[in-house]
Amino acid sequence: MINDFKFTVLKKSKKHNGRAGVLHTPHGDIRTPIFMPVGTLGSVKTLMPEMLLSEGVEIILANTYHLFLRPGMELMKQSGGLHQFMNWHKPLLTDSGGFQIFSLGNLNKIDEDGVTFQSHLDGASFRLTPEKVIEIQQIIGADIIMPLDECLPIGVSKEKTRESLQLTSRWAKRCRNYLRDNPSRHRQVLFGIIQGGMFPELRKESAEQLLELDFFGYAIGGLSVGEERNQLYDLIPQTVQYIPEEKPRYLMGVGAPEDLDVAIDSGIDMFDCVLPTRLARHGSVLSKEGSYSIKTKINEYDISPLDNSCDCYACRNYSKEYIRNLYRNKEMQAMSLLSIHNIRFLINLVKRKRQDILDE
Amino acid sequence: MINDFKFTVLKKSKKHNGRAGVLHTPHGDIRTPIFMPVGTLGSVKTLMPEMLLSEGVEIILANTYHLFLRPGMELMKQSGGLHQFMNWHKPLLTDSGGFQIFSLGNLNKIDEDGVTFQSHLDGASFRLTPEKVIEIQQIIGADIIMPLDECLPIGVSKEKTRESLQLTSRWAKRCRNYLRDNPSRHRQVLFGIIQGGMFPELRKESAEQLLELDFFGYAIGGLSVGEERNQLYDLIPQTVQYIPEEKPRYLMGVGAPEDLDVAIDSGIDMFDCVLPTRLARHGSVLSKEGSYSIKTKINEYDISPLDNSCDCYACRNYSKEYIRNLYRNKEMQAMSLLSIHNIRFLINLVKRKRQDILDE
Repeated sequence: MINDFKFTVLKKSKKHNGRAGVLHTPHGDIRTPIFMPVGTLGSVKTLMPEMLLSEGVEIILANTYHLFLRPGMELMKQSGGLHQFMNWHKPLLTDSGGFQIFSLGNLNKIDEDGVTFQSHLDGASFRLTPEKVIEIQQIIGADIIMPLDECLPIGVSKEKTRESLQLTSRWAKRCRNYLRDNPSRHRQVLFGIIQGGMFPELRKESAEQLLELDFFGYAIGGLSVGEERNQLYDLIPQTVQYIPEEKPRYLMGVGAPEDLDVAIDSGIDMFDCVLPTRLARHGSVLSKEGSYSIKTKINEYDISPLDNSCDCYACRNYSKEYIRNLYRNKEMQAMSLLSIHNIRFLINLVKRKRQDILDE
Repeated sequence: MINDFKFTVLKKSKKHNGRAGVLHTPHGDIRTPIFMPVGTLGSVKTLMPEMLLSEGVEIILANTYHLFLRPGMELMKQSGGLHQFMNWHKPLLTDSGGFQIFSLGNLNKIDEDGVTFQSHLDGASFRLTPEKVIEIQQIIGADIIMPLDECLPIGVSKEKTRESLQLTSRWAKRCRNYLRDNPSRHRQVLFGIIQGGMFPELRKESAEQLLELDFFGYAIGGLSVGEERNQLYDLIPQTVQYIPEEKPRYLMGVGAPEDLDVAIDSGIDMFDCVLPTRLARHGSVLSKEGSYSIKTKINEYDISPLDNSCDCYACRNYSKEYIRNLYRNKEMQAMSLLSIHNIRFLINLVKRKRQDILDE
């Protein structure tokens, strides 16, 4: 079934390491580089699928951890999978839940076999293994799925980081084998997640171990929080160099405009981040001059759109003062309109980068 | 300019006093009987205009009181009116603010000339007169506007109610004269509001006084809250009989399905109510078997739509369990989907009643 999936690099930049490509999936093509909005609980907060499609969204990321806890897999099974459940018939990607278990949940135990943690919702205890994580993602049915990985906090020693990435590699192999031996009712491909913290040689070690397993694509984990920008910018090319050119490369959890810009030039093809929707809920607007707050007095009596150069639904139809007024009145459409704009802003950014490469 | 507006009764029922008609306005035709969703603050809560259009909404009611306080008229002027401001290019109706001044605001003084009240937002004091209320509505620019009226609480004596309706009639005349002598930049028509509390002969007295002023249409005020159903059902035909057949008749603030049903049979053409959106925010679903709560356990694992006989966007694309899950997770789309369904439910009800009359 895997032959429904195909990644093609259409053109490589001569100026930098960026490339323009297409990732074919059973639910449609993804033109890379691409930004993926996050639909944590089976919806991109405040937005209907039709709005996302209108803004050029081609793939959504959903969180396995959240869907596993609520609504749970019984309901997901009955619904025939997440595409059907959430009325999104384009490509989906699910993370493994690892990041949330280590950040949101209350981790009780980690051993060779898997992790035991307590739900952040009600404290209920769960055990997840690499095999179980694949089984869950087979029920959810996303096009692209992820293996269980250990996500370390920042500041961990080199020795501990090496032990951790080696565990992640062993888990990755178990995930690969489980998927191979237990075919999905949905057509799905598995990525490997390269870990290794802030240590370039550990990134290399992690990449080499995962490359032996020949995943469909490769994600770079553990670079989304807490790093200094310069260190991040160094580590991306240092890690990318080990991923073969014919494989899609996914930088997990990164979505700030300046980071996308640098990472695309380093050869990254896919990004996800809650940034555009989270900023929206706090009244922040992405723009070429940086982000600004819709709440400030300066936007009163301003009948111009959020961003003069933007072509999103919000900018085509509403003024700053209208959105500011909705926001002050705590009307939810304020968050919808700001989310639409912020997502379109990032989509436009990656599309422009892609076109620049194609036009070289 | 008033010749852009025209109300035509297409057919009268032989079985009851209901009729099917068309109200032509500069922003489009309204097929009556019609239900008008309420967009208090310049938006129908949680819904984009496109969603309303998709569900067959033909006219929205906006609240003058709220728009006057926030965003205020300076901003409304700069925006070129409410149609532009809120991106709704179909017909709009604004109430006079009277109902909110008497219910939400802190009324300080009522005299022959007008009312003084304090804002429910920040306690700021405002003075409104009949003339001022028209001036405000000229800035807002709705197609159909309302005169300032006094709204009494329930249980007021007959004598007090008579004094009040007479004041309302004098204010109505001042509103009519102000509009006549100060043409709008927008094309607008004014309705009269019949008051008179629970007293049929006072309803007659109010209607007669207002009929002398020859308004474009007639609203029935003061019947939306606190009455016993039977009393309401008696008072509607008792009041309607005084309104000439060629005038559109609007029952203010009424929107329960059973009330629409009875009132349409009594000859009412227009309704508004916050009911469908308010119910939605509390997780309640309108259906033929009455309303039910999406929150109940019984909707878990239920992959059927909210209402099997409904053709709204929510029922066509989502299951009860999906919407229940969004609601439990406090995701705003739950309210959007429930609002869409509840509004469509009432729209379908009035459309079916209309078609029944046309098909007789």
